[in-house]
Amino acid sequence: MNRVPDEGLTKIPGGTLITETPELGRALAFDIARHTIHNIQPDLDILKGGRPNYATSPDSLTAAGHVVAIEFQTIAAANNYWRE
Amino acid sequence: MNRVPDEGLTKIPGGTLITETPELGRALAFDIARHTIHNIQPDLDILKGGRPNYATSPDSLTAAGHVVAIEFQTIAAANNYWRE
Amino acid sequence: MNRVPDEGLTKIPGGTLITETPELGRALAFDIARHTIHNIQPDLDILKGGRPNYATSPDSLTAAGHVVAIEFQTIAAANNYWRE
Amino acid sequence: MNRVPDEGLTKIPGGTLITETPELGRALAFDIARHTIHNIQPDLDILKGGRPNYATSPDSLTAAGHVVAIEFQTIAAANNYWRE
Amino acid sequence: MNRVPDEGLTKIPGGTLITETPELGRALAFDIARHTIHNIQPDLDILKGGRPNYATSPDSLTAAGHVVAIEFQTIAAANNYWRE
Amino acid sequence: MNRVPDEGLTKIPGGTLITETPELGRALAFDIARHTIHNIQPDLDILKGGRPNYATSPDSLTAAGHVVAIEFQTIAAANNYWRE
Repeated sequence: MNRVPDEGLTKIPGGTLITETPELGRALAFDIARHTIHNIQPDLDILKGGRPNYATSPDSLTAAGHVVAIEFQTIAAANNYWRE
Repeated sequence: MNRVPDEGLTKIPGGTLITETPELGRALAFDIARHTIHNIQPDLDILKGGRPNYATSPDSLTAAGHVVAIEFQTIAAANNYWRE
Repeated sequence: MNRVPDEGLTKIPGGTLITETPELGRALAFDIARHTIHNIQPDLDILKGGRPNYATSPDSLTAAGHVVAIEFQTIAAANNYWRE
Repeated sequence: MNRVPDEGLTKIPGGTLITETPELGRALAFDIARHTIHNIQPDLDILKGGRPNYATSPDSLTAAGHVVAIEFQTIAAANNYWRE
Repeated sequence: MNRVPDEGLTKIPGGTLITETPELGRALAFDIARHTIHNIQPDLDILKGGRPNYATSPDSLTAAGHVVAIEFQTIAAANNYWRE
Repeated sequence: MNRVPDEGLTKIPGGTLITETPELGRALAFDIARHTIHNIQPDLDILKGGRPNYATSPDSLTAAGHVVAIEFQTIAAANNYWRE
């Protein structure tokens, strides 16, 4: 098996939900969502094999965006929405 | 690849969740949702190619609206719901 | 293109999440959900063309109801649940 | 058209999210979810026509239960979870 | 009709969201989710007839797990997450 | 039936939502999500039989990731987002 490298399997990259800016918080949401998939399916060849279908299907993209939105909701709350 | 321009890849356009009005907060929710898709699939031709199916399918539109609703939930909380 | 009239494209009709009653808050949730669809697909003919399938499919109706539920969750929180 | 009676179109039956007990709050969640569908599709014959498929499909039932869960989340928060 | 027994139709079994432990709170989430289905479709034969398909489909199981997750979110909040 | 071992049926492994770190909280979210499936379908052979389809389908993986995101939202709130 062509396995996702170990750093791709960290569940919370960086080990914290706290970020300096909303942009970094959103990037973390993407990372957490992606690492979740890696943890469920760590075989890179299977992941890459599915990408052409997934990334060209509007409904699949919407579903992926939905998950990022949920992860971000958690991260934004953790950071008190970066209010000053 | 006909790539989405860089400004379309900013994850949180404007860099903040705070907006002056609910209308602007909702507009931000749309932008964040769209930029999420751009970040997952940055090829404009593929994005445009999927639009005719997606934008004429009620179920796809509902799913897209669902994501905007979640993004807005986060933004509305960030702004204390624009209460006075 | 037979375009949705401008007032159908306001993202937050009335410009506020605050309503006098739960009933009006729920009506706002419906409006926001509908205007979201209008903003993604502003061609009235396409919207009307999809309605016969959509509005007679239980699963499509459930999905639409799901979105209204999320929008209402935000509005209800904004109004402190109209507690006295 | 065999239209849902007017009382089935009230968006928030009873006009409040506050209930005496969790059981009544859950019943309200069911009612709100159902009235949402009635408002989107007020033709009783169409609604009844779809029921045999919908109510015998596990996935459709799960999706309906999901919506009730979201509505209840809002109602439970409104009632401070009926804590004493 | 081979009807679900009355106790299976209680919407909130036990009549409260408050539980002593997270494990019991999770069990309540399962029960509430199941009773929701029973209330929408109270015919046991139909429910049992759908089970072989539903319980062997990964996507159906994921969707069911999603609903339990939402119900638990409400129950966990009701119990202040069983923090000491 | 080749039944999931008893420890795989605990609904909240460890009996608490409180964890020392976000990484452990995320691991708990995975565990809770998996044990939910085990409780609904405790037959290991059926679970393993579905895995090849499920774990190679991008949409199924996205749906599974969605559930983990929801479970984590609850756990993160329980831990006050591990803020210091």
